[in-house]
Amino acid sequence: MFDSGLGGLTVLREIMKITPSENIVYFGDTARVPYGPRSKETIMKYTFQAIDFLISKNVKAIVIACNTATARALKEANEKYDLPIIGVIEAGARTAAYTTNNKIVGIIGTDGTIRSKAYNIEIAKIDPDIKIIDKACPLFVPIVEEGWANTDIASLTAKRYLEELMDKGIDSLVLGCTHYPLLKRTIGEIVGEKVKLVNPAKETAKDLKQILEDNNMLRDDVEEVPKYEYYVSDIPEKFAAIAEEFLKKEIDDIKNVEIQQY
Amino acid sequence: MFDSGLGGLTVLREIMKITPSENIVYFGDTARVPYGPRSKETIMKYTFQAIDFLISKNVKAIVIACNTATARALKEANEKYDLPIIGVIEAGARTAAYTTNNKIVGIIGTDGTIRSKAYNIEIAKIDPDIKIIDKACPLFVPIVEEGWANTDIASLTAKRYLEELMDKGIDSLVLGCTHYPLLKRTIGEIVGEKVKLVNPAKETAKDLKQILEDNNMLRDDVEEVPKYEYYVSDIPEKFAAIAEEFLKKEIDDIKNVEIQQY
Repeated sequence: MFDSGLGGLTVLREIMKITPSENIVYFGDTARVPYGPRSKETIMKYTFQAIDFLISKNVKAIVIACNTATARALKEANEKYDLPIIGVIEAGARTAAYTTNNKIVGIIGTDGTIRSKAYNIEIAKIDPDIKIIDKACPLFVPIVEEGWANTDIASLTAKRYLEELMDKGIDSLVLGCTHYPLLKRTIGEIVGEKVKLVNPAKETAKDLKQILEDNNMLRDDVEEVPKYEYYVSDIPEKFAAIAEEFLKKEIDDIKNVEIQQY
Repeated sequence: MFDSGLGGLTVLREIMKITPSENIVYFGDTARVPYGPRSKETIMKYTFQAIDFLISKNVKAIVIACNTATARALKEANEKYDLPIIGVIEAGARTAAYTTNNKIVGIIGTDGTIRSKAYNIEIAKIDPDIKIIDKACPLFVPIVEEGWANTDIASLTAKRYLEELMDKGIDSLVLGCTHYPLLKRTIGEIVGEKVKLVNPAKETAKDLKQILEDNNMLRDDVEEVPKYEYYVSDIPEKFAAIAEEFLKKEIDDIKNVEIQQY
């Protein structure tokens, strides 16, 4: 699996839980993060490089754990490559469509994801009558990366961002950025119990398991401890600390990769 | 002048005030913002492209209104080109060195600027005895871009970031990111009147005027209204709104430029 940076680790965490025997290679394109403001051509190029790198590590399936790369390059990646490749948007959109009762769904994400309308398009495919209230929340990512997810700053920010969505009566809310599951408690306190939070990371992990089963690829009942390898294109100072916050476990082995060579 | 994005507009604002007769071409490399996480080679390439573009517009002097590009490419740009090119770091560092009485200076900026140690190096050249307390404040940029500079969120964030610097006894504080002058009031309330805020944008504008005078280039006492042209490599949705917040005046003419062609 790969992400433009660290956010995809929330998806990795869910995959580790649901398919605990699988070996996983994680690539974070930390030298070129964020993908959000880049052109479709650039994002496709970066995505194909990441996929080529992962294939060189002999993976059997790939998860694009990045909303921007999913929105801009998943379709093209599936046309180009033979192995199963899934993104983070479809599973989240599907769950939201089946979760809402009043057919008013909220979507929050980065500027790039919200502008791409990727969740809106996927949800409309399932039920065009669902009304979508979407909102970009650019402060959430740096708040998570500072480790401030459970502070008063996070609460006030969430209140300010989510007020409008609450006023418009949403009954389910898609956490449309891989960083946001770390804000689940704070967001949950603001929106209350009546609003169901949809975590695409969790839904994507379920989809992956299903696809591995369908293709007779699932590694199950194996006594061996699974191997987790981490690669990044650039090691920011705080990488290990933030990564451990995301994964809630220690990471000892982070390697550098020259991604331009792929 | 150019910047990786919008932040340089705070520098433009100061230049407009101090040299009100000059025509100015502003280029914001909004398609490739932020420069912070990129390699020195990439930042040099982008900087030279921006300079070539500005030269094609017949400018007589260039201000690199971006801390990252100044730190990584100013020296090389001055070696390569003949016209005067100045950055935003030297003037701010010099002012800080002459402002401090107790020789304890605070520097705040983006992760990239703080990691580059560019202000520290410049200040040490003037007075190696000055003790520097630096701190990256990654939430400040998105707070400014949301238009939240004077909210409780900004105050709480500033308090959290600046506490440590206050505890260590700084008596002057360099606003080492072009976005930060918009947080001046909030930051000023937190640090109090005893801490002098150094705004590199203002100091750079003074330097520019001096250089234009020294080279007999200053356009003065001209009755004609000066012409301001704005170019960006990509127009983000909120560009005009944010730009007007930065400049405190209306912007009507924003053109797109294919910067890769330079």
